Amino acid sequence: MSGEFNLIDKYFVNRQPQRKDVHLAAGDDCALVKPPSNVEIAISTDTLVAGTHFLPEANPAWVAHKALSSNISDLAAMGATPAWVSFALTMPEVDEEWLAPFCDSFFELADYFGIQLIGGDTTKGPLSLTLTVQGFVPEGKALRRDGAKVGDWIYVTGNLGDSKAGLEVLLDTENRVRPNAEELEKRHYLSTPRVLAGRALCDLASSAIDISDGVIADLKHILKRSEVGASIDVSLLPLSVELLEYATSIDKAQHYALTSGEEYELCFTVPEENKGSLESALAHAGTKVTCIGQIRPVDYFEIHDNNKPLNWDLSGYDHFKAK
Amino acid sequence: MSGEFNLIDKYFVNRQPQRKDVHLAAGDDCALVKPPSNVEIAISTDTLVAGTHFLPEANPAWVAHKALSSNISDLAAMGATPAWVSFALTMPEVDEEWLAPFCDSFFELADYFGIQLIGGDTTKGPLSLTLTVQGFVPEGKALRRDGAKVGDWIYVTGNLGDSKAGLEVLLDTENRVRPNAEELEKRHYLSTPRVLAGRALCDLASSAIDISDGVIADLKHILKRSEVGASIDVSLLPLSVELLEYATSIDKAQHYALTSGEEYELCFTVPEENKGSLESALAHAGTKVTCIGQIRPVDYFEIHDNNKPLNWDLSGYDHFKAK
Repeated sequence: MSGEFNLIDKYFVNRQPQRKDVHLAAGDDCALVKPPSNVEIAISTDTLVAGTHFLPEANPAWVAHKALSSNISDLAAMGATPAWVSFALTMPEVDEEWLAPFCDSFFELADYFGIQLIGGDTTKGPLSLTLTVQGFVPEGKALRRDGAKVGDWIYVTGNLGDSKAGLEVLLDTENRVRPNAEELEKRHYLSTPRVLAGRALCDLASSAIDISDGVIADLKHILKRSEVGASIDVSLLPLSVELLEYATSIDKAQHYALTSGEEYELCFTVPEENKGSLESALAHAGTKVTCIGQIRPVDYFEIHDNNKPLNWDLSGYDHFKAK
Repeated sequence: MSGEFNLIDKYFVNRQPQRKDVHLAAGDDCALVKPPSNVEIAISTDTLVAGTHFLPEANPAWVAHKALSSNISDLAAMGATPAWVSFALTMPEVDEEWLAPFCDSFFELADYFGIQLIGGDTTKGPLSLTLTVQGFVPEGKALRRDGAKVGDWIYVTGNLGDSKAGLEVLLDTENRVRPNAEELEKRHYLSTPRVLAGRALCDLASSAIDISDGVIADLKHILKRSEVGASIDVSLLPLSVELLEYATSIDKAQHYALTSGEEYELCFTVPEENKGSLESALAHAGTKVTCIGQIRPVDYFEIHDNNKPLNWDLSGYDHFKAK
């Protein structure tokens, strides 16, 4: 830990209740923590760069929410319970009008999930944020990408597509006149990671991933790691009323749903014998889940509309190609 | 974990021997790790930004070394043994000529210290790196900043001042004609973190910090957290022959030594009764240590030359002020 000391003190130290497993947070060369003995630690790192992942003029409270929730979403996808976060902030100059709402939003979300900030760095340079979150998962119970089996059912949480529509709105002002534009833009930034759902899935799902690059692109990571294929029925995709109005046609809305990145919903697979338990478990977690297809043998991949085959181009999102 | 998948696979996955405490590294939403039961985990995060912490045209192998060694140095300053690193890389475009030497150097140093890369992110944007390193320290034994007591002796490892001279050389080509310019520039980038020394100090030192902002600025963090003062004798400062030749006079070399940031030597305090044990313990660790002063009561701070008081201006390094 180093950097601009007053900045760290004023905005980032002592903003949160202390967790008992954090023995030392800010103020030394390292943080000191001690996890429970019966868990594995799940760790994820994400960077958000102004101009690549958010507009430089974006609401700083929304940027904070997006940065932290996208990282928590990686924990949720493993079935892990969030615990600690390290935060590196690079900015061109100290901008208190940006920092104050950013930190209020950051710590509100951190508090909600019981996460303590344990350290970080503040440096001068082009605006970007890197977060490393850590959480606990009972040993051997983590949801991985490599457990899907032929015949398992493919599910997603929540609705799909809103995030992509929101991104369109914020990138092109002409879209602001379209129905629900403001609401969809907000949803792009303000997703809620599916932590409770992830925990509930630990004993039920055979694999899971969070949707950061689009459900098709992310599902393909499961297929690759599990050495299986898939069949997806677009007529089953969960779509919000707002997206349907925005997209003007159902097949356009389905395109959004299949390629919408940064959703931070979960995509997961469930063996036939767990389908019943799934619904009651996810009802307890307060999360809508929808079956959108089924796992098939390796190299088989099909997208259909209620058994009518489709031949849609659905490239995933890739920072080094897409922008 | 997300980002440009081929980039991650080609340069960062399966480059290292697997640690047994890493249950899952790249290829899923999170890494999964499990520390031994009798340790605390020490965690540190540092960001290096091109143009702020290194020149964009700097040797990528040196940048990798500096990035990782500065982070390991924070572990060393707590007496921790390095274990895992998460690495976020932001770059304007995929540049293989930069990445190949960067990764060779990064993994060479990681291997040397037995550190495994457990995850990270690659994103598009202005060149910068953020590392989060984690290491183990026996529970309750960590070297902290808040344990210095009046009468303790103040020590540093290695020599001081070379890093600042090297920085001068690389920032102003006119300095390249001065004695040892090339060697000092190299030392600025290629310090070796004092991991073995830090471990040896766990049972002997009352406080420790690594020198990232200059020994005076960093010592003042110990003084503030420990609520004590200090007296420093500049005639005792360990100076390299190369620095003395470069600086042309001994008091100029002493100025370099007191304000040289990014040294990644340790500054630590030792109670009188441990002075004897210290020398033999550090000899085992192969590290030169030098006593440069003594802890005094709070609010007392003095720099002298063999008891002749000095009134030097020695501001610390601060990214938001200095550049």
